Amino acid sequence: MRVPFQDMYNTFMKILTAVGCEQDCADLCAKIFTQNSCDGVYSHGLNMFPGVISNIKNGVIDINARPKKVHHFGACQVWNGNYGPGISNAHFAMAQAIHLAEKNGIGCAAMRNTNHWCRAGTYVIQAADAGCIGICWTNTIPNLPPWGSKQASLGNNPLAIAIPRAEGHLVLDMAMSQFSMGKMRVYQRAKEQLPVFGGYDADGKLTTDPAEIFQSERALPIGLWKGSGLSLMLDLLAAILSGGNNTFRIGKLGAEKNVSQVFIAIDTRKISSAEFVRQIMEETIASVNRSQPAKKGDAVYYPGQRMLMTRADNLANGIPADEEIWEQVLRSIASKP
Amino acid sequence: MRVPFQDMYNTFMKILTAVGCEQDCADLCAKIFTQNSCDGVYSHGLNMFPGVISNIKNGVIDINARPKKVHHFGACQVWNGNYGPGISNAHFAMAQAIHLAEKNGIGCAAMRNTNHWCRAGTYVIQAADAGCIGICWTNTIPNLPPWGSKQASLGNNPLAIAIPRAEGHLVLDMAMSQFSMGKMRVYQRAKEQLPVFGGYDADGKLTTDPAEIFQSERALPIGLWKGSGLSLMLDLLAAILSGGNNTFRIGKLGAEKNVSQVFIAIDTRKISSAEFVRQIMEETIASVNRSQPAKKGDAVYYPGQRMLMTRADNLANGIPADEEIWEQVLRSIASKP
Repeated sequence: MRVPFQDMYNTFMKILTAVGCEQDCADLCAKIFTQNSCDGVYSHGLNMFPGVISNIKNGVIDINARPKKVHHFGACQVWNGNYGPGISNAHFAMAQAIHLAEKNGIGCAAMRNTNHWCRAGTYVIQAADAGCIGICWTNTIPNLPPWGSKQASLGNNPLAIAIPRAEGHLVLDMAMSQFSMGKMRVYQRAKEQLPVFGGYDADGKLTTDPAEIFQSERALPIGLWKGSGLSLMLDLLAAILSGGNNTFRIGKLGAEKNVSQVFIAIDTRKISSAEFVRQIMEETIASVNRSQPAKKGDAVYYPGQRMLMTRADNLANGIPADEEIWEQVLRSIASKP
Repeated sequence: MRVPFQDMYNTFMKILTAVGCEQDCADLCAKIFTQNSCDGVYSHGLNMFPGVISNIKNGVIDINARPKKVHHFGACQVWNGNYGPGISNAHFAMAQAIHLAEKNGIGCAAMRNTNHWCRAGTYVIQAADAGCIGICWTNTIPNLPPWGSKQASLGNNPLAIAIPRAEGHLVLDMAMSQFSMGKMRVYQRAKEQLPVFGGYDADGKLTTDPAEIFQSERALPIGLWKGSGLSLMLDLLAAILSGGNNTFRIGKLGAEKNVSQVFIAIDTRKISSAEFVRQIMEETIASVNRSQPAKKGDAVYYPGQRMLMTRADNLANGIPADEEIWEQVLRSIASKP
């Protein structure tokens, strides 16, 4: 089934308001949840909505808490997320990074004690909409084994980068495993196999079955030892720069909460001429798009190119929705908050 | 064969001086070439030395050129490397990023028109030695196909990150392919197969044979579409922030030269308490090191841990050297510059 953007937004808005979210914050969160699904990142849009509402109800998310500045030095700020909503907290932190970049060329806002931001790509797109390069990452619960181990002691910490472009930003949004946890859940719900190996089964054999990977807790890091190493570094940077929890400490909390996040913006307008940047980007994009396909007839894309096609399709024809999850969301409007 | 650190350094020093390198620059370059091999990164130490000397002789590297500041805004600087030596240029640029970080918490120095810096890890270790988090990357010639293509139109652009630690820094230094080009050359010279798939053969089948991968020009990106996407973003960021060449333009030059690089330093002392940082790091390191190994008896390491062991061994027992390359270097002392 496909749900029109406005209908999905209205539904999220109603439910967020009903659970006590103030108007501005509800509007922002409803818009971002809907945009995430509209961009084709269903796992981090509609599919994540019921879990966030649960976390508001059970107190993991303090719906009306707002971030507080802890420290400011030069182009760096440290914020306490005060256990508030992950989406509005992250949006706020990237806005601070953008302000810092306007003044300093580059800006870094780190936030501790915040909640799941749903989709990393959201906040680098926000930076790119403001004309800045955006870079952000978060840590999470232990759900990825370090290379050489079968015990999940690292987080599958996503990293996102966007570069602004008038015709649609370049957007990279990647978990440290071959498939994000959310993406694997989408395959699992559809009873489909992953298109390439995504992790190990209980016997330590590579598998395309998401259920077996969730059971073994052994997703495959990108580049094997490399993704494992990058994930560890991102976790430490997030904890150090925000003065917040590392994955080790988050793992002791019994839920995915009180995470640490880093938001970097770079204002290219303070550094390079717009015309030079345009030329450089168009050359690279053209060179990638015309690269000879490995399989005859296939197309070769830049990061974010397919997202733009999906977005246009979903805006025109409605957003594909997991029927069961959408029904669950609709039912919750009728029930008490 | 194993060569003592001081002997290798002295040899490099003699040759660099003989080709016209000034004392300070020769000392820095000789030290870094030796350290790279001493840390076990043979591909980017001794093995890269003859090529750099050739590039000095044939004019790709202007041995006595020095970087010139092009632009400064807040915590960002743009430098022109003036086709000077890649090692001393990169060392200089990271030093600027460290200065910027001391004043602004974070600093970004980008450099255009510079040469191969040999090993990415060198400059983030330099930042960590100065008490800063270091992040750097470079672009290069087209030598990696974008995902879905068999034509190398992206660069295999390495990314390095270090976090300072009294007992030895955490250091991640990774190419965007499963094995760096240099590492594959080490396997090829030793007539060994790669331990895991490193790319495709001419028929598009995954292979562990480095020669077949060089022939097909199809190294395997880490995380398949993810490493391909990250490589493209790193290339664009390097070109945009330095006002320099992208991989596309470098590919038109007929040699790996005039590349673009980015150096970021973050002065954690301006942001977090030393004791907090120490605790966070020790917890994460302990948690990784005690993770249950996938194979009984194996150890689980943090990024840079094995490098510290290799460094200690090589300092004590001499640096393992490719005999043929070492002899070639020794012979060149006798010959005219």
